[in-house]
Amino acid sequence: MTQSPVLAPAGPFSTPEREAVYRAIHSRRDVRSQFLPDPIESGVLDRLLLAAHHAPSVGLMQPWNFILIRNAAVKAEVRAAFTRANDEAAAMFPEERRALYSSLKLQGIEQAPINLCITCDRSRGGPVVLGRTHNRDTDLYSTVCAVQNLWLAARAEGIGVGWVSIFRDSDLRQILGLPEHVVPVAYLCLGKVSELYDEPELQAKGWARRRALEDLVFEDRWPAPGD
Amino acid sequence: MTQSPVLAPAGPFSTPEREAVYRAIHSRRDVRSQFLPDPIESGVLDRLLLAAHHAPSVGLMQPWNFILIRNAAVKAEVRAAFTRANDEAAAMFPEERRALYSSLKLQGIEQAPINLCITCDRSRGGPVVLGRTHNRDTDLYSTVCAVQNLWLAARAEGIGVGWVSIFRDSDLRQILGLPEHVVPVAYLCLGKVSELYDEPELQAKGWARRRALEDLVFEDRWPAPGD
Repeated sequence: MTQSPVLAPAGPFSTPEREAVYRAIHSRRDVRSQFLPDPIESGVLDRLLLAAHHAPSVGLMQPWNFILIRNAAVKAEVRAAFTRANDEAAAMFPEERRALYSSLKLQGIEQAPINLCITCDRSRGGPVVLGRTHNRDTDLYSTVCAVQNLWLAARAEGIGVGWVSIFRDSDLRQILGLPEHVVPVAYLCLGKVSELYDEPELQAKGWARRRALEDLVFEDRWPAPGD
Repeated sequence: MTQSPVLAPAGPFSTPEREAVYRAIHSRRDVRSQFLPDPIESGVLDRLLLAAHHAPSVGLMQPWNFILIRNAAVKAEVRAAFTRANDEAAAMFPEERRALYSSLKLQGIEQAPINLCITCDRSRGGPVVLGRTHNRDTDLYSTVCAVQNLWLAARAEGIGVGWVSIFRDSDLRQILGLPEHVVPVAYLCLGKVSELYDEPELQAKGWARRRALEDLVFEDRWPAPGD
């Protein structure tokens, strides 16, 4: 502390604190059907947005904006855009999976009291951003960090979050009036929940299974073919 | 619970639990200089990787792999690749910022006991992935969610994390032996820390400042020019 007044002690959390962080991480779900109609208190919403805003960002670029959508007409347009894209999506799956695909509920746009589009302004911070000189997509990555911060905070607040990604880019841009240099990274549905699946919903519904972690971990480099 | 046996009660966390989640979010830092040489216990590392693996992923694609780098020779190659790219980066800034840029320490590759490259396998799950039909980059976004889960878990464990993004893509691919279809999303330095900056380091060092959240929040759509 004497050498640098802005450094503060920062060791491990207490066991109950650590367990709370892991509880948020492990019990977080992608919510489509469990939204309650109750409004989200403004204090809660403020805390969620502040959590998102405290995400890491390349060069402290903070490229995000938060578009809060409560207007029913706007939600209805977004819902229609989802339906158009999802009809296209269903046709892309092999016939044997199509019935299961179509049975899945993949969005709660109109049930969720609040929708939130988190965008990335690719021009923020000017043409040269520290840390972004060799990979221009790091601003998109920063924006996703904001999404995940909000998602975990929401779990702790009893707020469910569902990320809807089945849209034609042009539809979402037109509905939300996004300028060319702004990318809609995540369209989220937010609402109170009183229950959640105890495993990923796509696993509960038989679409996919969680992989074994040990198969995904390598040492020092990607294994050579045949290793 | 009677209608669907896999739904479990899921309300808000207790106040101390919620505060622990926010503590991780608000006190997390991008670490470059505070790494201690002490090894990270394998139980801690396992919990961090498990937290990453419990990130949301599009279509439950789980596109990530985790390359743990402890070998000093590999770290030295990565460090040299950073230096090459960072020399290029410094030259991109206007002259009046170049001295400050060059004074910033932007990586702790060799000080950190463990480096971790989190990659995205763009071919995983086959050619058509649920939720990825209209935006192919959602697999990269899922991988970033894994990074942020790990970063917050690390804060709770007393482990500092630094994301190094200043590399030529081809250098990192060659050193780590990545196949064409695998993207190195994040190169992370991990090590125990006993102190952290109490604000973002780039703010503490006078490079950039945190923006006001209220300037970043919009209602229902992006404001029209002149609004």
